[in-house]
Amino acid sequence: MSCVFCDIVAGTAPAVRVHEDDDFVAILDIRPIVRGHTLVLPRRHHVDLTDTPADTVAGMARLGQRIARAARASGLHADGNNVVINDGKAAFQSVFHIHLHVAPRQDGDKLSFAKGLVVRRDPDREATAQILRDALALLPD
Amino acid sequence: MSCVFCDIVAGTAPAVRVHEDDDFVAILDIRPIVRGHTLVLPRRHHVDLTDTPADTVAGMARLGQRIARAARASGLHADGNNVVINDGKAAFQSVFHIHLHVAPRQDGDKLSFAKGLVVRRDPDREATAQILRDALALLPD
Repeated sequence: MSCVFCDIVAGTAPAVRVHEDDDFVAILDIRPIVRGHTLVLPRRHHVDLTDTPADTVAGMARLGQRIARAARASGLHADGNNVVINDGKAAFQSVFHIHLHVAPRQDGDKLSFAKGLVVRRDPDREATAQILRDALALLPD
Repeated sequence: MSCVFCDIVAGTAPAVRVHEDDDFVAILDIRPIVRGHTLVLPRRHHVDLTDTPADTVAGMARLGQRIARAARASGLHADGNNVVINDGKAAFQSVFHIHLHVAPRQDGDKLSFAKGLVVRRDPDREATAQILRDALALLPD
């Protein structure tokens, strides 16, 4: 079975990368709810929380925290973040390679957040990714 | 400063407990969006993702996964789960003691989920908690 996230991890499908290490790749969501909406993908294919090793779930959360902290420190000036795993189709999971969402939020952004649920676009993804990469590079451990 | 989640951890404020161990307490949300809506609280007080140690975030995610798996295996018959950390007021965080939400979901529950965002009640929390405790006790590692 083909899996778009496996293809992205392998480099055979395009994505704008924010971070990569031995175990995870972080990319911008192609249909972002907010600017900087990032997905943390384990390199190994797992479907959801029923089959993903606990260490992988923990690693996704660690990296998600780093991205959330970077979003606050970055030129995106996030005031907070929603960090989310949608486990199963019933929970809005749409790609069945487990992933963790980081959605940077701004004070008072409820209306644009609601709009983002419908519109889901970023006119300059490369600039957005560079802002996050720069902040991640400067983040203390 | 008083903190209701510190009081719950200490046992001086009431809560319906689903799980507890040396580092975490899991309780039913007092205003559940769905039946079985559970919160994972670290025993130690941290505010949000900017000050919570990475090991604590990882531990919250591990326990959140176990609760999500238990919800699927349990008499709640969850088909999936939303696992969420709201990091900051801008991201809908309302109690400033970091916590992770597990919201068990059912296929086709979108309307009741939307209603739950408004109504947020469970007529029999003790029964709900017992269903989750039973499933956690039977869950393989």
